[in-house]
Amino acid sequence: MAKYPENFLWSGVSSGVKRDGKYDLGLAYSSFPSTVVGVFTENKLPAAPVIDTKQKLSLKTQFHALVVNSGVANAATGEDGIADNQQLIEETARHLNLETDQVLSASTGYIGRRLPLKNISAALPSAVDQLQRDPAEFSRAILTTDTRTKTVCLPMPGLEAHIFGVAKGSGMINPRMATMLAFLFVDYPVESGWLKEQLVQAASQSFNQITVDGDMSTNDTVLVWAANLPGKTPLTADHPCSREFQITLQKAAQLLAGKIVSDGEGASCTIEVLVNGARSDQAAALVAEEITGSPLVKTAFYQFPPNWGRIYSSIGASGVDFDQKALRIEIDGTVVFKSGAPVGSKAQLKKQMEKVENHLIKINLGDGAGRARSITCDLTRGYVEINAGYS
Amino acid sequence: MAKYPENFLWSGVSSGVKRDGKYDLGLAYSSFPSTVVGVFTENKLPAAPVIDTKQKLSLKTQFHALVVNSGVANAATGEDGIADNQQLIEETARHLNLETDQVLSASTGYIGRRLPLKNISAALPSAVDQLQRDPAEFSRAILTTDTRTKTVCLPMPGLEAHIFGVAKGSGMINPRMATMLAFLFVDYPVESGWLKEQLVQAASQSFNQITVDGDMSTNDTVLVWAANLPGKTPLTADHPCSREFQITLQKAAQLLAGKIVSDGEGASCTIEVLVNGARSDQAAALVAEEITGSPLVKTAFYQFPPNWGRIYSSIGASGVDFDQKALRIEIDGTVVFKSGAPVGSKAQLKKQMEKVENHLIKINLGDGAGRARSITCDLTRGYVEINAGYS
Repeated sequence: MAKYPENFLWSGVSSGVKRDGKYDLGLAYSSFPSTVVGVFTENKLPAAPVIDTKQKLSLKTQFHALVVNSGVANAATGEDGIADNQQLIEETARHLNLETDQVLSASTGYIGRRLPLKNISAALPSAVDQLQRDPAEFSRAILTTDTRTKTVCLPMPGLEAHIFGVAKGSGMINPRMATMLAFLFVDYPVESGWLKEQLVQAASQSFNQITVDGDMSTNDTVLVWAANLPGKTPLTADHPCSREFQITLQKAAQLLAGKIVSDGEGASCTIEVLVNGARSDQAAALVAEEITGSPLVKTAFYQFPPNWGRIYSSIGASGVDFDQKALRIEIDGTVVFKSGAPVGSKAQLKKQMEKVENHLIKINLGDGAGRARSITCDLTRGYVEINAGYS
Repeated sequence: MAKYPENFLWSGVSSGVKRDGKYDLGLAYSSFPSTVVGVFTENKLPAAPVIDTKQKLSLKTQFHALVVNSGVANAATGEDGIADNQQLIEETARHLNLETDQVLSASTGYIGRRLPLKNISAALPSAVDQLQRDPAEFSRAILTTDTRTKTVCLPMPGLEAHIFGVAKGSGMINPRMATMLAFLFVDYPVESGWLKEQLVQAASQSFNQITVDGDMSTNDTVLVWAANLPGKTPLTADHPCSREFQITLQKAAQLLAGKIVSDGEGASCTIEVLVNGARSDQAAALVAEEITGSPLVKTAFYQFPPNWGRIYSSIGASGVDFDQKALRIEIDGTVVFKSGAPVGSKAQLKKQMEKVENHLIKINLGDGAGRARSITCDLTRGYVEINAGYS
């Protein structure tokens, strides 16, 4: 068994909301309280648990428990949804002998349905009973259309500590958050203001660089829990291990983001786009996201060689100005366009692409030092089948 | 046979670029010269014929012929592409006894391939020979993945004139132009400045309101040809029939746009979104286009009732501010969300939706007088199959 961070207990159970006994209710418990920071969806119609969690994090930093349900998003549920979420938190707090303001919640699933409180109430006692040092069942309980659990566990260099991260995808994934829940737990105290900065930075290099279908959900939530274990000085910028913490947090976030995109609905491969040579990082991001947001690019990777003209068209569709003659497009190491004209053979491109499982598109606009990265997955019949049959 | 505008001759032939003898080369000929105005893709990497046509229209207004090839877009072809396009125009002019600056061109098809000039040169004489009063073969020659021709012919009230419009879709269709060619021919002179204004206005209410997949192509071109028939005073704002001309041009453009979206790649139905009650028309357009641009919304219409939570989520993802309690969502006449909560039964919604072939989503944000309209088609397995097998 991997070494999970101390201080935390997790559980996952079936409340009967999802079919076939699939887990749909998860609990995470922090024995000593944790400092918690979060980043959230920018959707203007956030779900009830997002509204509540954002508000709680704006008022205090220390929490003891997290309750997550999957199958119903508790979004588009108005005042009833707010009350339902409050009841979920009250019941969780009661079973764990906590105050309600020590408990956070998250939901994911179908939008426009009331939270199934009857099921959840009945299942909560067993979720509490089954709290354990292994997060495997919690990892399963937060999934929706994901085909597999997404976890990462990394030692924290220089500290006797670990970071454990767990996430769910897998449609409605887009830069600036996604239908995505990600929770990171570390058994070391971290100063809350500095921790928030590190999370924002890590998210910008991970969760905010992935897209499955360009949709931005109502429920996206990323939380970092840093356990306030006694006898340890909280990490801040001037701690000797601060840089290691930054790097490890970012790595954990990037690994989770990669797992989310590679398990995108119907995905058979990932497509990473690196843009260099733009006038600014913002311009580079516009180009990168136009490419990964294009259904025509995403369907092109179903067979080799792909129609790279769709990548070319997306670069122009981004609205970013540059000199066409300086543009260079490379796919899996094969240059397909440079000096204003197509180059290379289709056979060569096909051969290179068949060697790899996931694909890398490198764009150079030859117009500055701006750079950006965006990752997506291919668009397959599987995506349509999952989403046309979801309701 | 419908009454087509006088003065024009059209033809379509097979040059062998497309398989199975499908037509891929079209000519339109204006006996008296026509005043021509156009609107074009905003893609920063426009194809060679787009660059050339824009430049010609900026220098003069009178033209005699249009040559269109399908199958190869002549985009991403650099200086070679410019030269190829010039040669296409020179050969067309020579066969028609015209000057090169009297001929315009358009291309659509695969990006990154040289224009097949050998095929086209060999086929041009028969395209000239077959020029005729019936545009049926021209209409076929400009298609790519379209499953049917798209034409409209309307009488011009008050004038002894007609407007004939012909278009091709059908992927890469997006507001602010699309992989779309549309040509409108009218047998009545129109003053060029006023005609351009009318085209821009008509496009904003038609071609710029449709989306198939959010991709903006390198080749989109809409041209209006108004024949300078002798003995008729050119239409301008103060002509007694100017309003009728505006209305008829707009109607023709809207009918063509509707045909493009209903023949979107793999489409089985169209989805029209009307947004009212926004703070501005711009805000309304952001909401409408977020909905029609959402793959999750587009896949939801595959079975009834659709998961309308995806529409709700898209409204929030648009970034537009409004009061959730004032939000109202209606699908095919059935209200599904109002006063901050879901309403109505799924059975009722299903029943209503089964009655219609195409669907209408009405959104009211309850926050002002801004309004907008956007039309898309559903996203089906067919779309993926067409685009994954295209190369």
